[in-house]
Amino acid sequence: MPQISEKGKIMPASPIRRLVPLADKAKERGIRVYHLNIGQPDIHTPEIAIEAMKTWTGKVVEYTNSVGNASFRKKLAAYYRGVGVDIDETNILVTTGGSEAITFAFMATLDPGDEVITPEPFYANYTSFATICGVTIKTVPSFIENGFALPPVSEFERLITPRTKGIVIVNPGNPTGYLYSREELEQVADIVKRHDLFLYTDEVYREFCYDGLKHFSATRLEGIEENVIMVDSVSKRYSECGARVGMLISRNKEVLSAVTRFCMARLSPPALGQLVAEASLDTPPEYFAAVHHEYVARRDYMVGALNRIPGVVCPMPRGAFYTVVKLPVKDADDFARWLLEEFDDGGETVMVAPASGFYSTPGRGKDEVRVAYVLEISRLKRAIEILGRALDAYPGRIR
Amino acid sequence: MPQISEKGKIMPASPIRRLVPLADKAKERGIRVYHLNIGQPDIHTPEIAIEAMKTWTGKVVEYTNSVGNASFRKKLAAYYRGVGVDIDETNILVTTGGSEAITFAFMATLDPGDEVITPEPFYANYTSFATICGVTIKTVPSFIENGFALPPVSEFERLITPRTKGIVIVNPGNPTGYLYSREELEQVADIVKRHDLFLYTDEVYREFCYDGLKHFSATRLEGIEENVIMVDSVSKRYSECGARVGMLISRNKEVLSAVTRFCMARLSPPALGQLVAEASLDTPPEYFAAVHHEYVARRDYMVGALNRIPGVVCPMPRGAFYTVVKLPVKDADDFARWLLEEFDDGGETVMVAPASGFYSTPGRGKDEVRVAYVLEISRLKRAIEILGRALDAYPGRIR
Repeated sequence: MPQISEKGKIMPASPIRRLVPLADKAKERGIRVYHLNIGQPDIHTPEIAIEAMKTWTGKVVEYTNSVGNASFRKKLAAYYRGVGVDIDETNILVTTGGSEAITFAFMATLDPGDEVITPEPFYANYTSFATICGVTIKTVPSFIENGFALPPVSEFERLITPRTKGIVIVNPGNPTGYLYSREELEQVADIVKRHDLFLYTDEVYREFCYDGLKHFSATRLEGIEENVIMVDSVSKRYSECGARVGMLISRNKEVLSAVTRFCMARLSPPALGQLVAEASLDTPPEYFAAVHHEYVARRDYMVGALNRIPGVVCPMPRGAFYTVVKLPVKDADDFARWLLEEFDDGGETVMVAPASGFYSTPGRGKDEVRVAYVLEISRLKRAIEILGRALDAYPGRIR
Repeated sequence: MPQISEKGKIMPASPIRRLVPLADKAKERGIRVYHLNIGQPDIHTPEIAIEAMKTWTGKVVEYTNSVGNASFRKKLAAYYRGVGVDIDETNILVTTGGSEAITFAFMATLDPGDEVITPEPFYANYTSFATICGVTIKTVPSFIENGFALPPVSEFERLITPRTKGIVIVNPGNPTGYLYSREELEQVADIVKRHDLFLYTDEVYREFCYDGLKHFSATRLEGIEENVIMVDSVSKRYSECGARVGMLISRNKEVLSAVTRFCMARLSPPALGQLVAEASLDTPPEYFAAVHHEYVARRDYMVGALNRIPGVVCPMPRGAFYTVVKLPVKDADDFARWLLEEFDDGGETVMVAPASGFYSTPGRGKDEVRVAYVLEISRLKRAIEILGRALDAYPGRIR
C-alpha cells in the first residue's frame, strides 16, 4: 500500500476538535454535554443577515469573484475605515474563514524551514497551518500569573535567527483573552521594523473588548505599513462561524498579488456565506451593545465562579470570550477525556479544551484548560457547578 | 521590505480566472461579455435546495463537524451506493469544494519532490495544488485528433521514477470532456497496482455523460481499493458552484485519518453550503433528465457551429460540459486577451480560456482554447457568431 506523506503523519489533531468523537459518544449514551471547549457562541446571528439569505431572489448559487464579491469588499473597506484602518477594497481579499487567510498568508510569505515567533500559549491551529507550510513556530512564554501579558520584547529578539520571517500576534488573544495595548504593539512594531519581518495580526475578536478598553489594530502602526498582514473573519463578530467568510488585509502589493493567485486556485470563497456576511455589515449598533453586555456578564460570572473552586486559578480576560484556567490536576488532557468518558453529574458533563495543545514547549500548560464563555449564564452556572463536582470526584486531582 | 515566499512567486495565475479583470474592464466600458471561459452553468440550482435555505429555522449559523454534518454524510453514502460505489459515511469527508479535497489529498499523501502523472491537457488548477505541495506533475500527451483519449499505458510507465507517488485522472475530463471507459480505467488500475501508487480520481462531472454512455467510477476498480482517493463536489451536479461543498472519498484508513486532521485545522466546511447540498440530494430525477437533454442539445449545437467556422477543429465530448477547440491563430492567449480588450461586435464579445494553461509541456495548446457550453442555445449561438467574426477580424489569424 502506498505510504501517506510526512505532513499527513505529523499533522496534529486539533486540541479543540480532537475530543469531539468522545463527546458524540457521551451524547449517544444520553449524557448532556456543556461545551466550554469551542468558540461557537450561542449568540444569535443578526436577523438582518438571516433575512438576506431568506429573501435572496437568485436562481443559481454561482461562484463569486475569487477574492470575494466587489460589493462586499467595498462595504468591508468602509467598516475598516470606521475603526480607524485606512484602506480600500483593493487591500481586502475575501477568504474561506480566517483559517484560509492564515494559511494563504503563510504560504505566500514563508518558505519551508522559515520561522515565526509568537507568544505562548497561542491559537493551536497555527501549529497546523505551520505544518502545512513546513514552517517552525518559536514561542516566547507568557504566564497566567500576569494574565498572559506581552512578554518583554527582548525575549522575542533573543529568538531571532536568519530564518525568522515574522511575528504572529492574536489580539485579543485566543486562548488567553489578553488584549494588547497600543504601547505593547508599538514595541512589537520596533522589532518588526528593525529586523524587517512580517507581522501577522489576527484580529478576529476585535469587537470583543471589555472594561472600557479600546482595540488598537496593528494595521495602524506607523513605519511598518507594508509588513503587516491582517487576518480577520465575520465568524465571531456576527456569530456566523459556519458562514466560513474571512479576510486577508494588506497594503503590500506583492503579498496581495501572491494571495490572489492562491485564491484563484480554489476558485471562490463561499457565496452564501458572503451573502450573509455582507448583510451583517448593516447590523445595528444595539446588537453589539447587547452582545457586549452579555459577554461581560458571563465573563464576570465565570471568572468569579471558577476562582471560588478550591485550587482553580482564572485570570480576568479583557477581550475575546476565552480564558486559560489552571486546574488542580496533574494532567488536564486526561481530565478532559475523563469528563467525557467516565464522569457525569445527574446525566450531565462538561467539555473543555486541554491547554497543552496551545503550547509548543513540552510540559507547559499540562494543568490548564481553555474555557469559552459562550453559554448563557444559567447554563454557564450549571457547567461550572459540574466542573467543580468533577474536580472533587476526579482520581487525578491534586489535593 | 520582507520578501514573499518562493511559492508566492511561482504560484500561477489561473488560466480560467486570470482574464477576469479584463472582462470586468470590458463590462465597465459597456461591452456585453459571453462567458465561454468558466464552468459556471446557467442551469438553475434545484428548487428543493434553495427552499431548504429559505425555510431554515436556525438562529445561529454554526460551525459544523470538521468533516461535515453527519446527516449529510449519511445521505451522500446512500447516493454513492446508488451509483455502484460501495462505501459508508465513514469513507466520506466533506470539504470546502472539490478544490480543498484535491489539496488535502495531495498534502496528506505527497511529500515535496514527489511526482504524479496525468494525461495532458489537464485541469489547470492541479498545477496550483501541486505548487502548494511542492509536487511535480508529469504529463502524458493526449491529442485533439482522437478526442483526447487515454494515452497508451506504456506512456505512463515510461514516466515512472522512484519519486512517482500517484496518477491523476479527471473523468469525465476537464478541459477535454473526454469520458474514460471501464476498460481504459482497468489499464490504469494495472499500473497503479504494479507500482503501488495512489490513484486520484476527480469525478465531479460524473452525472454529465452523453450518448448513452455510463460513467464508471474508479472507486469500483478491483484490487486497488486502498489506493484510490476520489474527489467529488456538488458544484456541477446541482449547479451550486458557490456552495463550496466537495468531498474526499477513500477506503484507506490512514488517508482518512490524515485528511481528518487537515479538516480539523480549518474547523468546518461551509454550513450554509451543506444545508443546500444536503437538500439537493433529494432532487427529483426529472431535473437531471432536463439538464441532460439541455446539455446534449447545447453540445450538439456548439460542436456543429464551431466546426463550421473555417480553420476551427472541435472534437465531440462525451461528458462534462467543456471541450478543447483548435483555432486558426498562432497565440490563443493573445487572442483571448484581444477579444476582451480590443474587439467587439455590436457592443458584445466573448471570453474563452486559453488552453496553454491546461498543458505543462511548453508550446502545447498554443492554438487551442477551452470552451464551456454553459449558456442556453440562443446565447451560445450569438457567442459563436461573435467568435467567428472575431476570428475574421483578428490580426493574428492564420490564413
